Amino acid sequence: MAADISIPTTQRAALVRELGGPVNIIPDYPVLKPGEDEVLAQILYTGVCQSDLHTARGTAPGADGKPILNVKLPHVGGHEGVGRIVSLGPSSASVPEVKVGDLVGIRFLARVCHECEFCTSQREQHCVNATNHLHHEDGSFQEYCVLDRNYLTPLSPDIDPVVVGPVLCAGVTAYKAVKNAGLSPGQWLVVVGAGGGLGHFAIQYGKVVGANVIGIDTGQVKKDFVESLGGRFLDFAKSPNVVEEIKTITNGGAHGAVVCSGSGRAFTGAVDMLRIGGTLSCIGIPPGDIHLTTPLATIIIRGLKVVGNLVGSMEETLEAVELVRQGKVKPHIEVREFDELPHIYEMLEKGDILGRVVLKVAT
Amino acid sequence: MAADISIPTTQRAALVRELGGPVNIIPDYPVLKPGEDEVLAQILYTGVCQSDLHTARGTAPGADGKPILNVKLPHVGGHEGVGRIVSLGPSSASVPEVKVGDLVGIRFLARVCHECEFCTSQREQHCVNATNHLHHEDGSFQEYCVLDRNYLTPLSPDIDPVVVGPVLCAGVTAYKAVKNAGLSPGQWLVVVGAGGGLGHFAIQYGKVVGANVIGIDTGQVKKDFVESLGGRFLDFAKSPNVVEEIKTITNGGAHGAVVCSGSGRAFTGAVDMLRIGGTLSCIGIPPGDIHLTTPLATIIIRGLKVVGNLVGSMEETLEAVELVRQGKVKPHIEVREFDELPHIYEMLEKGDILGRVVLKVAT
Amino acid sequence: MAADISIPTTQRAALVRELGGPVNIIPDYPVLKPGEDEVLAQILYTGVCQSDLHTARGTAPGADGKPILNVKLPHVGGHEGVGRIVSLGPSSASVPEVKVGDLVGIRFLARVCHECEFCTSQREQHCVNATNHLHHEDGSFQEYCVLDRNYLTPLSPDIDPVVVGPVLCAGVTAYKAVKNAGLSPGQWLVVVGAGGGLGHFAIQYGKVVGANVIGIDTGQVKKDFVESLGGRFLDFAKSPNVVEEIKTITNGGAHGAVVCSGSGRAFTGAVDMLRIGGTLSCIGIPPGDIHLTTPLATIIIRGLKVVGNLVGSMEETLEAVELVRQGKVKPHIEVREFDELPHIYEMLEKGDILGRVVLKVAT
Amino acid sequence: MAADISIPTTQRAALVRELGGPVNIIPDYPVLKPGEDEVLAQILYTGVCQSDLHTARGTAPGADGKPILNVKLPHVGGHEGVGRIVSLGPSSASVPEVKVGDLVGIRFLARVCHECEFCTSQREQHCVNATNHLHHEDGSFQEYCVLDRNYLTPLSPDIDPVVVGPVLCAGVTAYKAVKNAGLSPGQWLVVVGAGGGLGHFAIQYGKVVGANVIGIDTGQVKKDFVESLGGRFLDFAKSPNVVEEIKTITNGGAHGAVVCSGSGRAFTGAVDMLRIGGTLSCIGIPPGDIHLTTPLATIIIRGLKVVGNLVGSMEETLEAVELVRQGKVKPHIEVREFDELPHIYEMLEKGDILGRVVLKVAT
Repeated sequence: MAADISIPTTQRAALVRELGGPVNIIPDYPVLKPGEDEVLAQILYTGVCQSDLHTARGTAPGADGKPILNVKLPHVGGHEGVGRIVSLGPSSASVPEVKVGDLVGIRFLARVCHECEFCTSQREQHCVNATNHLHHEDGSFQEYCVLDRNYLTPLSPDIDPVVVGPVLCAGVTAYKAVKNAGLSPGQWLVVVGAGGGLGHFAIQYGKVVGANVIGIDTGQVKKDFVESLGGRFLDFAKSPNVVEEIKTITNGGAHGAVVCSGSGRAFTGAVDMLRIGGTLSCIGIPPGDIHLTTPLATIIIRGLKVVGNLVGSMEETLEAVELVRQGKVKPHIEVREFDELPHIYEMLEKGDILGRVVLKVAT
Repeated sequence: MAADISIPTTQRAALVRELGGPVNIIPDYPVLKPGEDEVLAQILYTGVCQSDLHTARGTAPGADGKPILNVKLPHVGGHEGVGRIVSLGPSSASVPEVKVGDLVGIRFLARVCHECEFCTSQREQHCVNATNHLHHEDGSFQEYCVLDRNYLTPLSPDIDPVVVGPVLCAGVTAYKAVKNAGLSPGQWLVVVGAGGGLGHFAIQYGKVVGANVIGIDTGQVKKDFVESLGGRFLDFAKSPNVVEEIKTITNGGAHGAVVCSGSGRAFTGAVDMLRIGGTLSCIGIPPGDIHLTTPLATIIIRGLKVVGNLVGSMEETLEAVELVRQGKVKPHIEVREFDELPHIYEMLEKGDILGRVVLKVAT
Repeated sequence: MAADISIPTTQRAALVRELGGPVNIIPDYPVLKPGEDEVLAQILYTGVCQSDLHTARGTAPGADGKPILNVKLPHVGGHEGVGRIVSLGPSSASVPEVKVGDLVGIRFLARVCHECEFCTSQREQHCVNATNHLHHEDGSFQEYCVLDRNYLTPLSPDIDPVVVGPVLCAGVTAYKAVKNAGLSPGQWLVVVGAGGGLGHFAIQYGKVVGANVIGIDTGQVKKDFVESLGGRFLDFAKSPNVVEEIKTITNGGAHGAVVCSGSGRAFTGAVDMLRIGGTLSCIGIPPGDIHLTTPLATIIIRGLKVVGNLVGSMEETLEAVELVRQGKVKPHIEVREFDELPHIYEMLEKGDILGRVVLKVAT
Repeated sequence: MAADISIPTTQRAALVRELGGPVNIIPDYPVLKPGEDEVLAQILYTGVCQSDLHTARGTAPGADGKPILNVKLPHVGGHEGVGRIVSLGPSSASVPEVKVGDLVGIRFLARVCHECEFCTSQREQHCVNATNHLHHEDGSFQEYCVLDRNYLTPLSPDIDPVVVGPVLCAGVTAYKAVKNAGLSPGQWLVVVGAGGGLGHFAIQYGKVVGANVIGIDTGQVKKDFVESLGGRFLDFAKSPNVVEEIKTITNGGAHGAVVCSGSGRAFTGAVDMLRIGGTLSCIGIPPGDIHLTTPLATIIIRGLKVVGNLVGSMEETLEAVELVRQGKVKPHIEVREFDELPHIYEMLEKGDILGRVVLKVAT
C-alpha cells in the first residue's frame, strides 16, 4: 500500500514520564505499526481536555474520588483527536468499510469488548474490559496513533477536522448531560461553568433542544462569550444572590442544571437553583470525597433528580458530532501549535480558556 | 337526603393538642358540615403512617430538613383513610358523578388548585396552593371527614376497604419509587427497610414489574415476612458485608435500590450496592441535614442516578390501588381498634410492625 | 360586580341553523348568564379551523369515519378563541384564582369530568363525559361565551391575544404530533400540507426541538412561506418524484412525518418517505373509510410506527402556548372582521389561506 | 486445538434446492472451515420457525409484501439454533473472550457492519450491510455452522440448550412486541394467535411486565394451553362477538394487542379491540399488499398507535433469554429428531403446533 511508504518510524509526541512531572514534546517517539484488527491514523488536530491535565498531574479522581495513579508510563494523553487513516493492519486490509484516507476520531475509549452488558446496551463507556486513551494507551498527543478497527469513530468527509475534536469528549459529554436533564422545549437550563470547554457546548446543545439557557461564570470576557452563544449570563462573583436571581428569572427555579465545574459548592449551589422536580446533571468531577451537602429531605420532598454522566457512547458521540456537522452547534476553538501544549496546560489551570484550545499536530 | 339524618354532631377523634404532646382519643370532637364543593365521608378504616407519628411528635422533616412545626392545632392526623360518602355540600348535590354511598380515599393531599404547573402536569402532590391532611386539615383519625369534591379519590365498590387505606400513602409511594427506579424485567431491585409499611409494598410492586427483589431488614420475623412476599432476604445486622453479598447475588450490583429507611447510612450504603448505571430511589425522609456522603466522583464515573419521590399523583394512586384490586399486590395489614392508636405509635417507634396497622374507625 | 353592568343580553353570533346550510352572522343571539361553576368571557379574537367548516357542512368525520351529524342546532362554532372574563357565576365568585379581567382560551374541549381514566392520565381530550365547543356547546363565534370555571385555559397577561387563538387547536395539535414523532435533534421531519394552519405550526415546533424540516405543499406562495419559517420546500405538483427527493435529501428517508392533509394518498405517500424505524404522526382526518394502503409487511419489516393525534391535553396546550409566549413559535395570522366568516369558509375550502385567519370579535 | 480433530468434513443438512421444492435431509453436505474472524459451532438443537417454512416455499413476504425469491440456493434454513463452539478461525484464536466449548445462539442475523446508523443505535436487525441465516447464509438446519465471531450471541453455561433456541427468534420478537405495546402493570394485553410459537411467548412476556393477558385462538387444546400459561382465553371461532367480549372484560378495550397471525383480518380486528390510546403491536407478516382497513379517522380520533416489530437487537435478545434463564418465561417445546423436519413443516402449515417444535441436531 503506497500510503505506508511515507510513514516515519519516529514522531513528535507529548510525553509525561512520571505523574506530576513535566510534559515534554519529544521528537523521536516510536510510531507503532498497526496489528491485526488495527489501523494507523495520522493525527491532524487534537483538543486539550482538563482530564489530560489532571491525569498528567496525578490528580484526576477515579470512581472512588481518589487520584488515578495506575496510568501507563510514559503517558501520552489526548482524546479529542481527529485523524486520517494512513495504514491498515494485516487482517483489516480486507475489510471494505475501512480504508486509507478515512477521517476518524480518537476518543477517550480505545477498545471495548462488544460483549459485556454495557457494550450490548449502548453504554460501552462503562465496558468492563475496555482500554482508554488516557490511562492505558497513547492518545492523540502524538503524530500517529494506532486504533482498534472494530471500534473506530467514523467522521464524515465533509466535517471540519479543525473544530470537531473537542466534540468527541467535551461535546458529547455536554450533549449527554443536557439530554439527561430531561428538558421539554421552553424550559430553563442552568449551566454552571458556562464559559469553558464543557460549558460552551452545554449552552449550545441546550438551545438545540429548545431550552432557555442561563450560563453562570465570572468576568466580562465570559459574559460576552456566553451571550454570543445565546445564553443569559450571571456572574457568580458579582451577583449578590445567584440562587434568588435564578428563581426570579425562571419563575421558581430551573428545570435542569448542568454542572461543568469540579467544585463541590457548585453542585450543591446548583441544586438550590432547581425548580421542584428538577434535575441536576453532573459532568465536572470533584476530587476526593466531595459530595452533595443538600439534605436528602430536600431531594425527596422537592422530587429532585441527580444524574451522573460519563462521556458518551458511540451513538451519542455520533449524534453530538452530527449536530456540529449540521451547523447547529459551533465549537469555539483557538488553534495552537502542538508544541505549545505545556503552556496550554498552564492556561487551563488558571481557567483562562474560552471554549477549547485545539492543537495542530500534523505538519 | 335521608342519609344525613344519622350524622351526629360530635364524634370520636384522635387529638394532639400540641406537637410533642400525647395523642388522645376524645369522644366529642365536632363533625363539620360539608360546604360548597365539599362532601362528608364516614371513615371506615385508616392506616397509620410514620409521618403521622413524626408530625405529632414535631419531628417530621420539611424540605429543608428542619422539623415541620407549622401544623394546625389541635392536630388530627390520618391520611390512609377509606370512607363512604354520607352527605353532599350544597352545590355538590347536583353533581351526578358524586353520590352518597360512594367509597373514597382520604389521602395526604386534601385540596389542589388544578391550575399551577404541577397540577397541570400530573404532579399535583407539589401543588403550590395545596392543603393536606397532615399539616392543614383534619385527616382520617376521626369518624367523619370533610373532603373537596373536586379532588376526591374514587375507590371501586369491589375494593376491600379494610386493606386499601395503606395503599393511598405507603403503597403509592413505594409504587412510584419502584417505577422511578426504571427497571427492566429480570433486573435486580434492593429494598432497604423491607419489612415495614413502605418496604413490603416496594417488594411487591417490584415483583409486579418483573424485577428480582432482595429485601434488607433484620430479624427472623422480618426474614419470614420478606420471603413470604417473594423476596430474597439479607439481614443487615448479621451479614458480615451486605454490599459484597448484594454484588455477588446480582453479579455486579443492583439495578435499583428503594430506601424506605430514614437513616442516612442506609442511603449511602444503598448507593454502594448499585450496579454501574443504577438508580437510588429515595422514600424515607431523613431528618436534618443528613445527606448522601457518596463522592460525586462515584456518581459521575459510575453513571448513577438519585431520585426523590414524594407520595404520588392521583393517577399514580389509582394505578397502585388498581394493582391491589386485581390481587397482584396484597397489603399486609393488622386491624386494630381506633382507640389503640396511642399504643400503635409506640410500636411504630420501635419498628415492631410488619407491613401496616389499620384502625377500624366506624363502629 | 361593576363589570356585569355592561354585558348586553343579545350579541352577534355566527349561526348555522342546519348542517350544510349557510353560516349567518345574526345580531341578536342571546348572551347566556354564567351558572354555578361557570364564568362568562367576552371573545376578543378567534381562529377559524377546518373542523368548524366541516362540522357546519355536515362533513366532519367521526371516529368511525362517518360524518358527525349529531350536532347541537343552531350551531355556533369557534374553538380557537381568546376571551377576557367579564362575569363570574354565583359560586365562582368566591374562588380567588379566577377573576374578572383574566385572559382565557376557548378550546375544542368545553367541560371534562376530571374523574375518568383519561382525565386522570392527562388525556382529557378523550374524556368519556366531555362536552366540546364544536358539537355540544356554542363556541367562540359569538361575542360572549360561557365557560366551565373548573376547566379554564389560563392565558398569561403578557400573551398577544391576537395571535394565540390558533395555538389552542392547530398549534397544540401540531405540537403534539411533532412530539409523538419522537425525533432526536438533528433528525429529519417531513410536514405534508406545510403551508396551512396546522402545517406552519408543525414546521416551527419541529425546528424548536432541533429537527431539520422539509415542508411539502404546492405553489410559489407556499414555497416562500415555508422557507420563511426555516423549512426546505418540495412542491408535490412539480417534483417528478417527491419520495425519491426526500430519500436523497435525508440520506434514506425522514425520521418522522406529520401529515396535516385529509387526503388518504398523502398518508400512504408519507409512509413511503420514512426511514426505517420512522414514525407517521397523523393529524389531518380523512373522511369515510380512507385507510393506509401501506402493506402491513412494510410496517413490520421496516419497523415503522403510526400514531394518531387528537388535539392535546391542558398540559400540552399550555406548553404549546408557552413556546409562543417565549417567541420561539410565531403564529402566522391574518386578522379579519368577524362578519367575514362566510367568506373565510370559502377561502378555507379552496386551501387559499397561509397559516391562519383570525377574526376580531369584540368591537 | 484438539477439538478440531473430530470435526467431520461432511454432515447432515436440510436442503431446499429450489424455492417451492421439497426439503430433504442429505447426509453429505460439506462442513465449512471457519475463516478469519469466524468460529465453527456444532448445532445441538434448533427451533423451527414459520419463516423457515415460508422462505423454503417461496412465499415469505419482503418489505414490499412481495415474496422474497432472492435466496441463496441450495437453501439451508434454521435461525433458532443453539450450538457449541468447536473450532476458531485463524485470527479468532487469539481473542480471549471467545473459546471452544462456549454455548452460542444461531439467530436470524448472521453478520452486521457495526457502523451504520442502525448498528450504532441498537437496531442492528435493520443493518444495511447485514447478512442473515435465512436468505444469505446457511443456518442451523445442519450439524455445523460458521459464525461471525464479532457478532456472536453468547449463552450462559447454565442455560438449558434444549429450550432456548426458540427464544432467539420467536421469543425475542414477542418480547419486543410486548415492550413496544407500552403497557403499565395491571393493564390489558390481547394476544391474537395465542397458542403458537410467537403467541405463547407473548402471553408470558406480557405477564412478566404485570399485564393481564387475553389469548385469542381456537379449539380446546389451545384453550387449555393458553390458560396453563396464565392467560384468559377467547375462541374466535366460537365467540359470537370477540370484540364486544374483549370490551366487556377489559371495561373499554385492551391497552395493547400483539398480533402473531399473518391474516389481515386479524390485524384490523385487533384494532377494534383496543381502548382509546391503545397500541397495536404487529409481529405476524401478512403477504402481499394486505393492509389495515381501519379508517385513519379511527386511528386519529381514538389516538391509537400501530407499531411494526422485526425480531430484536442483540440487547433485546439477551434480555429475552435472561428471563428464560431466570425461569420467568418457559418455552413450551416438543423435541423431535432432525430428520422429522419435512413432517414438522406440514404440521406448521396446518397450525397444529402448540408453542414450538425443537429439533435435536447433534447426535
